[in-house]
Amino acid sequence: MIDTVLHNTTLITMNPNGDIIENAVVGIQDGQIALIETKTPDAPLPTARETLDAGGGIVMPGLINTHTHLPMSLFRGLADDLPLMTWLNAHIFPAEARFVTPENVYLGALLSCAELLLSGTTTCCDGYFYEHHVAEAVHHAGLRAVLGQGVIDCPAPGIPDPSRNIAEASAFMDAWRNKSPRIQPSVFCHAPYTCSARTLKAARELARSTAALFQIHIAETRGEYDQMRSQHHMTPVAYLHSLGILDSQTLLVHAIWLDDADIALIAETGAAVSHTPESNMKLASGVARVEAMLQAGIPVGLGTDGCASNNNQDMFREMDTAAKLGKVFSLDPLAMNAQTVLKMATRDAARAIGLERWIGSIEPGKLADIVILDTHAPHLTPMYHPESHIVYAASGSDIRDVMIHGKWVVRNRHIVSLDMADILEKVRIECQQIQNWSNHQ
Amino acid sequence: MIDTVLHNTTLITMNPNGDIIENAVVGIQDGQIALIETKTPDAPLPTARETLDAGGGIVMPGLINTHTHLPMSLFRGLADDLPLMTWLNAHIFPAEARFVTPENVYLGALLSCAELLLSGTTTCCDGYFYEHHVAEAVHHAGLRAVLGQGVIDCPAPGIPDPSRNIAEASAFMDAWRNKSPRIQPSVFCHAPYTCSARTLKAARELARSTAALFQIHIAETRGEYDQMRSQHHMTPVAYLHSLGILDSQTLLVHAIWLDDADIALIAETGAAVSHTPESNMKLASGVARVEAMLQAGIPVGLGTDGCASNNNQDMFREMDTAAKLGKVFSLDPLAMNAQTVLKMATRDAARAIGLERWIGSIEPGKLADIVILDTHAPHLTPMYHPESHIVYAASGSDIRDVMIHGKWVVRNRHIVSLDMADILEKVRIECQQIQNWSNHQ
Repeated sequence: MIDTVLHNTTLITMNPNGDIIENAVVGIQDGQIALIETKTPDAPLPTARETLDAGGGIVMPGLINTHTHLPMSLFRGLADDLPLMTWLNAHIFPAEARFVTPENVYLGALLSCAELLLSGTTTCCDGYFYEHHVAEAVHHAGLRAVLGQGVIDCPAPGIPDPSRNIAEASAFMDAWRNKSPRIQPSVFCHAPYTCSARTLKAARELARSTAALFQIHIAETRGEYDQMRSQHHMTPVAYLHSLGILDSQTLLVHAIWLDDADIALIAETGAAVSHTPESNMKLASGVARVEAMLQAGIPVGLGTDGCASNNNQDMFREMDTAAKLGKVFSLDPLAMNAQTVLKMATRDAARAIGLERWIGSIEPGKLADIVILDTHAPHLTPMYHPESHIVYAASGSDIRDVMIHGKWVVRNRHIVSLDMADILEKVRIECQQIQNWSNHQ
Repeated sequence: MIDTVLHNTTLITMNPNGDIIENAVVGIQDGQIALIETKTPDAPLPTARETLDAGGGIVMPGLINTHTHLPMSLFRGLADDLPLMTWLNAHIFPAEARFVTPENVYLGALLSCAELLLSGTTTCCDGYFYEHHVAEAVHHAGLRAVLGQGVIDCPAPGIPDPSRNIAEASAFMDAWRNKSPRIQPSVFCHAPYTCSARTLKAARELARSTAALFQIHIAETRGEYDQMRSQHHMTPVAYLHSLGILDSQTLLVHAIWLDDADIALIAETGAAVSHTPESNMKLASGVARVEAMLQAGIPVGLGTDGCASNNNQDMFREMDTAAKLGKVFSLDPLAMNAQTVLKMATRDAARAIGLERWIGSIEPGKLADIVILDTHAPHLTPMYHPESHIVYAASGSDIRDVMIHGKWVVRNRHIVSLDMADILEKVRIECQQIQNWSNHQ
């Protein structure tokens, strides 16, 4: 007798062979994948406490979003279509200084968790301030996450004195190590242009001391690239390497402005990349050389970035954009095919954030982070190739059910784990304040 | 007593002032917008046969998709991630030769109509073969459309003898002129590399003789550009102009490979452009110079293209991509802002296809093509700027209700006008044949 059996489905395993199993049966026991079979017409289903008919839809691994700032959902659409520095200095930073409180971090993170869950994302890799409250929200919502307390050399929400930034990050890691099976603490260092070499090295050591993931924004804009070249006579990536930052538990976020030597360096050190095409497009930062990175063997995961710069956290849309942008950027329709992009949102993403042992595919022994995609809508009928549909035609709203760690968090398009009416009402009240403030800026 | 009153909404008018009216009341009478008011707390609503509470969501003009091949929904995802010529010659053309029958054209068009309606598109501009059957499907579904019978100088579905192509197009126009208030017949000439100068001129004259829209694929690939330069010593656009094709009732589809003189020529002749960013990206055709076209005063509408090369017909996603691609292509975050892109999917699109007198905005006297967007989902809460939400955060699945020509075609996310279960079942049966054929290719 196992816990749950799913049947009547096309199973996208994302295992190393890329197996797709028609008419599959998936068994879940104690939060893990226990069995995968093909249903034969006469054989009965395995006995289970719960048997769920996937309705002929797709069962696939939950998507993994490798770069989020969950609490920023409260600022979605507050300021768009602006030059990067105006957007940051005149809108986002002042709004953060005023409205990023522990309560709002918790509320905004809950709101983002709801968006992620409803659109089929089961794991995210996040960095922000008051990350303790992000962790509480993620834990409450039932999501899985790698969470990094932000480190930056200027006064930040919750850290008025920047000299306390490493201590705060350390306290966060201590508090969340082994606290929840779904939460891995991490360090999120903002960027080489906002952190001194000393801070970068200290943050790196902090992460390394507990074998935690070290996340950092890098090589996002041409301006940053030029600044690093002029200040340090090195590219941003070479600069990080010179400080001993890069290793196989380093996640380089954005990584747009890279030369060939940077790509070789990343590959050599085993560092991973979070590719955030929609944010890079919206902020006009540039187009990352993803094909070259993949060819060099770099693990590249997809990410949406915070929804002040996207403004959605739908990984299905991100996959579609990643594929299409890769093709037009290289003028090669063979670039970034559906299989490649789907891996970047599942298996490769898991590797990029250090969780490949546990998630990223549906294989016996892995944790049961599973989504069911309803394929009955007009825009998904007919279905010739499920991977093509997932990347080019489906969207987050096609997700019917979501299981994380063996537990249902979304059923029939409704979140089981959260009181959404209450959350949305609280968000509306709080954001009225933000709107009023913004109108008088 | 008027027919319908909508209230409790933020109204995006898309009128020339770009007015957005909070707490708006919209009255519809005889298929037209009859009144637009702001609701005052004490004033009663106008008396109407039907009063609909928009639930605090957004009321906006139905979206206009300026380039579709509706029947190709049957081929969605059949072949992806291939070089353009392999995709066309080894997959799409053989599949069309075998499976494009009158029955399948009707069925595929109905399927696309369902997708369009459910995602908030109320008008499309289509070109295909057996267009008479597309027109029947559009008429039945309740959509509005400009429809062009395809003209090409090779055997095509329904036209085994290409010398009949103009006669067939003419017969289609005769049959559908004044037949349905929602259908405008048009001529769809495939491309300058598939039609002789004589065919191009004859097709152009046919359209001109009844003041109908003339649609043509142009300057889609670098290869086409080079071919025209070598064959005719002219750019594709200059070649069309040399044949007398360009005027204010010409819709140039794709229009990617343009030089400055081409843009000036298009502007001077008053021709319009259909910008299809997602198809251009997926086929790796290139990035159109939209900002330059807009600056030159060219009417540019957005289009999805057929769903063999996209593979979705969601205009919300197309808007998002158009904005983001425009920004990253120019490395300018101010390029293609939300207002600009929303105009390209409504008001400017109507102008591009010659229907600006009737649709594209919610103004008294225009036809009542209206959609209601549900803004209560986590990914649309809070809402600071509705236009930002529409372009960067919403998707077609957020559409709750759709009215065309004063008549409801979608209510509470269900299509009123079609028996979807029956259509989807027929599609599945037919596409099983296509799948079997494809597996043996």
